[in-house]
Formats: sequence, structure tokens, C-alpha cells
Amino acid sequence: MDGVNPTNVQALVRRTHEERVLAALRERGGLSRSQIAERVGLSRTTLSEITGVLIGRGAIIVTKTDGDVRRGSGRRAELLALDPSSGQFLGVDLGHTRVRMVVADAAHEELASGVATYDASLGWPARRQAAFDLIDAVAVEHGLHFGALQGIAVGVAGPDAGARHAAHEAFAERFDCPVVVDNNTRLAALAEAMTEDTPGDLAYVRLSDGIGGGLVIGGRLVAGGLGAAGEFGHVRVVRGDQPGARCRCGKRGCLETVASLPAVIAAAGVPDAAALAAAVAAGDPDATSAVDTAADALAKVLADAALVLSPARIVIGGSLPRVAPQIVARVAAAVGAELAAVGSGLPDVRAARLDDEDGVRGAIAALYQQSPLLAGYVDPLEPPTTVSRGSARV
Amino acid sequence: MDGVNPTNVQALVRRTHEERVLAALRERGGLSRSQIAERVGLSRTTLSEITGVLIGRGAIIVTKTDGDVRRGSGRRAELLALDPSSGQFLGVDLGHTRVRMVVADAAHEELASGVATYDASLGWPARRQAAFDLIDAVAVEHGLHFGALQGIAVGVAGPDAGARHAAHEAFAERFDCPVVVDNNTRLAALAEAMTEDTPGDLAYVRLSDGIGGGLVIGGRLVAGGLGAAGEFGHVRVVRGDQPGARCRCGKRGCLETVASLPAVIAAAGVPDAAALAAAVAAGDPDATSAVDTAADALAKVLADAALVLSPARIVIGGSLPRVAPQIVARVAAAVGAELAAVGSGLPDVRAARLDDEDGVRGAIAALYQQSPLLAGYVDPLEPPTTVSRGSARV
Repeated sequence: MDGVNPTNVQALVRRTHEERVLAALRERGGLSRSQIAERVGLSRTTLSEITGVLIGRGAIIVTKTDGDVRRGSGRRAELLALDPSSGQFLGVDLGHTRVRMVVADAAHEELASGVATYDASLGWPARRQAAFDLIDAVAVEHGLHFGALQGIAVGVAGPDAGARHAAHEAFAERFDCPVVVDNNTRLAALAEAMTEDTPGDLAYVRLSDGIGGGLVIGGRLVAGGLGAAGEFGHVRVVRGDQPGARCRCGKRGCLETVASLPAVIAAAGVPDAAALAAAVAAGDPDATSAVDTAADALAKVLADAALVLSPARIVIGGSLPRVAPQIVARVAAAVGAELAAVGSGLPDVRAARLDDEDGVRGAIAALYQQSPLLAGYVDPLEPPTTVSRGSARV
Repeated sequence: MDGVNPTNVQALVRRTHEERVLAALRERGGLSRSQIAERVGLSRTTLSEITGVLIGRGAIIVTKTDGDVRRGSGRRAELLALDPSSGQFLGVDLGHTRVRMVVADAAHEELASGVATYDASLGWPARRQAAFDLIDAVAVEHGLHFGALQGIAVGVAGPDAGARHAAHEAFAERFDCPVVVDNNTRLAALAEAMTEDTPGDLAYVRLSDGIGGGLVIGGRLVAGGLGAAGEFGHVRVVRGDQPGARCRCGKRGCLETVASLPAVIAAAGVPDAAALAAAVAAGDPDATSAVDTAADALAKVLADAALVLSPARIVIGGSLPRVAPQIVARVAAAVGAELAAVGSGLPDVRAARLDDEDGVRGAIAALYQQSPLLAGYVDPLEPPTTVSRGSARV
């Protein structure tokens, strides 16, 4: 170890252990000491020393025992979390017909939330104003001043980069803090991953008015080098002599023309989603056939993606699986058949756990992954110029 | 910044900057100061202070100017690199008919390399012995004692987890250092990514006796949660009424039955690869048709993967594109047509740059990504028990 002072090395190692503990709490909210020890790969003894120092410094607090969530018996473990007052995080989901917002603290506790609806024909300036009005109304109602706002994440519908830029500009001008903008379906993928004990790898597809998706690899959301990862909806599934229906993207036979909610409603010959749900529940042959066709096309797309990505989990969300839940089991069986021959394990195929709040929860999760300053602790990967930001407290 | 001593914070920030500079040099070998500054996001002034300290400490050295590699004019810039004597890295590629090895130092300079062939019918014990004999012979010839061996990476053919475990056990028993084992096609993907100025995102497919591939996302090799990422060869491309040829995986109509070298040779009605190359070069209609069919099937698989992953680059390697180079342009055109409608940018589709040495270069690259101890500097993310390893010098 020529040229390195052992005392400095010890201090550096300890600092780094502290940073890893804080990073785990930043991403996951409340965790017990044994959960932290497993996650960061430290012994219980080393971890106890570190959490003792961090509690003494006020960077983390003991929130409660885990008795309300844990399974099995045994002594209740204390849950540790970042000092809640050290930061606020605002998540916004700007959908086609409504805007949702959630404010959470550094301990991942929800402070307030709200939703407002608007007409799908409204332009961007009116939607932006609706979002700002909602945030103001919720802030007044809950006495929030956003004095320790660490960041805002905004989910927007669709892959349009122009919409993302407009949203970024508007929120950055209105709020003096970092702003992250992403496709709200991709944020939903992140939110689903965060419902797992170990976020790991996940391929998420959402079947609603359109079809979108997202990838989480190594616990991180993947945008792709070109920024458009997750476009499952525009993989073509109708091939050969049949041309397939025209897709809104301009191609023919995309998955979206077969497995979106409107496509299945049309194929089943019913007027709307409620009628489709009733027909599926009653075992109507046309409705069943339309759902099965959608499931088989989706299974082919997901199996091909799983051969390339080898994800541990595949999650199916959106309105179609809520109307026709059997789609999940049929896709799981078909994906399993396609992958069994190649000898790797099989992914767990499941329905989404989160409902319409998935986008706004994903927005908050994206902030927890990116937040530079928490618990009064400097993220050493950021240059010192960011340190002063957000140091005012509520 | 309650509770945090500003002096400690400054020291921590400086330490972290040093670690980022060292990490950049570890992964990329020699870099100029401006290349480092761009890569780690520091100003030239801050960077010069840091490199001055690191040079003074002996952790990094000035290797040479970049006059032999840079384009354009202007003053030559010094290239900085990690102290070469601080570590050795051994890469091994165990193929079906030959084993290759390369030894490199911490500055990414190749110290020695070698290759030995064996019969494809040889079992694992004989292959392992061939690898050890090759390493011993090269070490004697070049006077290497492996006294500062930081790690060994071994590429093995095929997705068989048993083969990977056997290789790991054998090399870990023979050499007292960390061993990494991965599929050699995946390592080839990493090697291709490392030929780029910015490794970024890349989807790699290799068309040879079989078809394999690999993904690099955010500069890192992706194994997938189930560990089998990159199995492009077993995506089914023959569908509908045509059953497709039986694949060695048990399914019918996999890409491998259409676009592997043996499949194209059979479809072209020629006896071997040399005859296929001659027929393709002469414009023989059967050979051209067989190559076009392979290219179209590959394009469909790669376009679907690109819709999901949105990679900046797609790289086509292996023996088939060497025999029939036109395959790359045809795939590029078809992928572009499939992606144009969805409005993201188009990936750069190119032929592989590396030849049969890609696996062993990828193995070395994997070590540079993972190496825990370099330049006499403790990686603070590793517990102190790893510090003593590798401190002996040649």
C-alpha cells in the first residue's frame, strides 16, 4: 500500500460504508438493520457501528418496528430511515385526461397527494396550468411550503421528446430544483420494480389505449442509447401474406393493432371496456377468442424479448389485463414454452401490482434513485456547487 | 450541512474525484487530460490538480503523447495511465477448437499473448490442461511470474452453466486471484463496445456455427436476471403454416436454422464456407438468395430487439459476415425501415471490428471493469480484507 496513509484509508472505507447505507435507505425507504446489512454486504457488527454514528449525527432516524408488515414470528426489528425533514420529493404524472401528484419525504412517507381531470382535447399550456393549480391547492391544504424540495419528476404520456422538453422547461422555471422528465409508462415500470424486495431485472408492458413498456436492469431504469427503450407496441406480429391492420405509427400489424384495449374491444364486437369485461366473464366465444389472440401475440413479443434480455420478471399492466385477467396466465404459459428449450430458467410472469398511480409512484422512485443531497449529507459524486441547493428547510 | 465538518467534506469530494479519475483510466487505459476531464465531468483546472497529486503519489504515470493516434493538428497531448506495474490481467478464451490467452498490465498494454489448437472432440480436462500449458509456455517465454495478477477472466463457448462452473473452479484452484467466467460471445460484445470512444449501448450478434450475442447497456455487460441474455439465435423467425427447420434447441424455425453459417451454406447448395464466399462474390443467384434470406430474418430479430432496447449501435460479427459482407448493409436498411415509423433515432448498424481475438479482448475488458485493487489504491467499495491481495509485485 505504498504512498497511502492507513488512517486515511480507514476513514475512506468508513465514509464509503456510510454512503452505501444512506444510498440503500434513499432508494428503499425504511429498512431494518438486517435488511441493510444484506443489501450493502456488511457484517451486523460493522453495520451497527455505522448506524450508531449516523443516528447520532441525525442523518437517519428510527421510525418504527416492522411488526405491521413482516411475516412470521420473532422479535420485531426497528426500521431505520433517512431524516424525513431532510428533503421533499414531488412526483407528477401528466396523463391524457388527468394529472396526479404525490409529495413524499426522504423516509418515503407520503405527505400529500391529489388528482385533477381535464379534457383530452386540452393543449399543453392548459395541462401545465392544471398541474400547477393542483400542486398549489394540495400545498395549501397540507401546509406544505416546498422549502426542502430535492427534486421533481414528471411523467408524460407518449414517446414525444418535444413534450418532455416542454414539461422540463415549465417545471424548472416554476420550481428552483432539479427536474427529471420521462415517459410515464417507463416510470410505471420502475414503480413495479420497486414493489419487489430486490428490484433487479424486469420487463414491463402496459396494454391500454396504446401499448408501451419499460425495462429495469440491475435495479435501474433503462432509456437506451437512443432514448426510446420499451416500445413493445410497435413490434410487428402479423406477418407474411396477411398485411395486418394499419397502426398509428404508420406500419401494419404492430402488436398495438392486436393487443391494445381498443383493438380487443373491436375484435370482440362489443361497444366498450365494460361490455368486454362482461362478455369475457360470461365466456362469450368472440370475446374469449379476441383476448386469446391478443395474449398469443403479446406472448410472442415478450418471449423474443426475454431471449435477448433474460429478465427475472415480466409484468403485464394497463387496462386490458384488468378487464381480462386470464391474459396473464396464458402469456406465462406461452412464454414458458418458448424459453424452456434454451435451458435458462423461466421468468416470473405476473400482473402489475400498482394501478393508475403507478406513473406518479415511479416518478418519486426515479427521484430517490437520482437525488443528490439527502439527510444533510453531500453526495461525493456531485461537484460542490450543488451543495448549497435545497439547504433551506421548511 | 448540519453535523458535517466542511474540511471532511472537501477531503471526501477530492478523494472521490481521484477515484473517478482512476476508474476512467482503469477502464480505458491511456487517456489525455482533456479526455479524462470530459469523461468524469471535471474542469481542466480541477483535473490538473488531481492528476498532479496522483502522479506525485506514483499511482499514475505519463506514458507518451497521443501523436500516433489523434486526428487533426495542434499540440500533442500527454497520455496518462495507471502505473503499469500495479497489476496484471489474464484473459483466456476457451473455444471449440482453440484456446487463446492475453496478459495485459494496468495501463492496458499487452505484455504477451498466445494461441493453441486442439481437436473439437476433446473433453474438458484436456482443454483445461491445454489452457494451463499455453499459459505456462507464454509465461516462460516472456519471463512473467504473475506476481501482481489482479484477476483472470475466462470466456467459454455456449450458454452451459456447468461449463462455466468447471472453468471457474479449475482457474481459481490454479491461480490465487479472483476469477470471472462468462460466455465468450458476450465477452466479444464487451470487446466491441470497448472499441468505441464512448462504450455506451450496443447489441451484438455473432453469426458463426451457431448464433449468439450480447448486450452492453450504459457501458456494462448485461447478463440478465436469469443469466442468459443475448440468445438472439433462438428467436423463431419461421412462423405460421411453414413449420421451419428443427433447431438444436428443440424448437423449429429459430434464427439459427436460417442465418448461421452452416444454414446459409446448405441453403446455397455449396459444400463449405470457401465455396459460399466464391459463389457470393460471383453473384450466384442461389447463394445471393440464401444470404438475403438470412439477412432479412436477422433484420427482423434485430429490429424487434431495437424497439425494446433502443441501442445506439448494433454490431454484426462472426464468420458469416466475413464470407458475405453485404449482409450488414441489407440488415441496416431493413432495421432502419422498421424503426423509422416510431420516431426515435436509428441505431448505427456496423460489422464487427475485432476478429477471432474478440473473446480474449473482452475477457480483459471485463477484468478492467471489475478489478478491485489498482495502482496501490484501495477501492473503497470493497471491504478491507481484499486489500492485502495482490500487493506482491513482480
